[in-house]
Amino acid sequence: MNIAFIGTGNVAWHLTQGLEQVGHQIVSVYSRHPDHAATLCKQLYDAQIKYDLDFTETNADIVLVAVADDALAQVIDSLILPDEIIVAHTSGSKPMQIFEDYPYHCGVFYPLQTFSKQHPLNLSEVPFCIEASSNRIEDILLQLAKSLSDRVYLINSRERSILHIAAVFACNFVNHLFVQSKDILDQAGIDFDILKPLIRETVQKALQTDPKMVQTGPAIRNDRQIIEQHLAYLQKSDVDKRRIYQLLTESILNF
Amino acid sequence: MNIAFIGTGNVAWHLTQGLEQVGHQIVSVYSRHPDHAATLCKQLYDAQIKYDLDFTETNADIVLVAVADDALAQVIDSLILPDEIIVAHTSGSKPMQIFEDYPYHCGVFYPLQTFSKQHPLNLSEVPFCIEASSNRIEDILLQLAKSLSDRVYLINSRERSILHIAAVFACNFVNHLFVQSKDILDQAGIDFDILKPLIRETVQKALQTDPKMVQTGPAIRNDRQIIEQHLAYLQKSDVDKRRIYQLLTESILNF
Repeated sequence: MNIAFIGTGNVAWHLTQGLEQVGHQIVSVYSRHPDHAATLCKQLYDAQIKYDLDFTETNADIVLVAVADDALAQVIDSLILPDEIIVAHTSGSKPMQIFEDYPYHCGVFYPLQTFSKQHPLNLSEVPFCIEASSNRIEDILLQLAKSLSDRVYLINSRERSILHIAAVFACNFVNHLFVQSKDILDQAGIDFDILKPLIRETVQKALQTDPKMVQTGPAIRNDRQIIEQHLAYLQKSDVDKRRIYQLLTESILNF
Repeated sequence: MNIAFIGTGNVAWHLTQGLEQVGHQIVSVYSRHPDHAATLCKQLYDAQIKYDLDFTETNADIVLVAVADDALAQVIDSLILPDEIIVAHTSGSKPMQIFEDYPYHCGVFYPLQTFSKQHPLNLSEVPFCIEASSNRIEDILLQLAKSLSDRVYLINSRERSILHIAAVFACNFVNHLFVQSKDILDQAGIDFDILKPLIRETVQKALQTDPKMVQTGPAIRNDRQIIEQHLAYLQKSDVDKRRIYQLLTESILNF
């Protein structure tokens, strides 16, 4: 397929190159900053820098909008699209209905992964969440996703927003617990590296089986003596850690 | 070295076999349940089942006590040890001072990892935390640990208890967040598998760099609109998830 990209961030960086590797053509790249578009175009076979959002003259079959969430509405507002072109965004948190001006030829093409430009990534293992305004467009987006990845799912906007909430727990909050854990060790002059093999093994076990079945620790054993010891130690540390310890211990006991 | 084991749980299961593989000899295995000792002895070259805790006649250089934390004090109380033998426990949460009757020849030999009998594990990557009541015994325990692993640390009882608190955050609580995340998806009929590549990549990034540097999500962006949406959704779910979402969001903002 011929694809026009809007955006040059981490997602666009990986998707453009990945799509070319499986035989699609990136015809143009637009960015608010034309030099960013130029940098990305250099990575691509024959993509042209696009300086505006008027696609009436393009030979693209699809326009993929891969910009930051808070820029998405404004970019879509500025689009000029002919009826025969498909437009899709790559956002996990914005509904398909954001394309209210293009209700018959829009969709969502959301790769559920964290991307960094420096860090190579195997797109074939990235789950793609697809949603479309019609069966015809759904088929086209599914096919495009399947050309990249073995994990393609039909996910509507409501489900995508629930996935986002679940990801906040399992990724953003988990990372924050790593931050807190490292902070506890830093304050005591202990190297966080000592804990990493245990963390890796714990995460692997949780993901290979059911996390419910492998819960360990003083909370699940209701080991009051250890819990009180830990809370007493955290009292000397900041209040957040103590509150997190208390709430998560309670929550494990409740579950 | 000649080693006598007390306990036949997951830690004893892996340590006995690992120690034999690098050339040590397990001379005996004791368990409250002699049939458990028999099962483990079958995995070992020439270990004998021991039926009591009297070690005055043993040819062991060291007795390793690898029993559950809540059984440790009672086992130690029942020990009869000659002066020339070293005794060490493998617990992360009990102090070395639990060996009050043997203050001159005791220590801690703590493998900081989660063990399951079914699951093979490379001991050479397991961090061992060593503590001892004298330099001479410290040297012996360090040497024993280094024969198994490339990651050997001198960690005193206070530091070990701080490590335990940090592990509660980075392992036990992290697993509970996976439980909550899966529960959110289960309730909506969405497969937890969709989220696993993102979780794996997030954890890898956090451990390869500094978790503080890779925090993402609505909390760190202070994206109030998304946060309120998520809290509104969780209101319909159980109260624990909402409280966890609120507290961890605040804590990320505070950090």
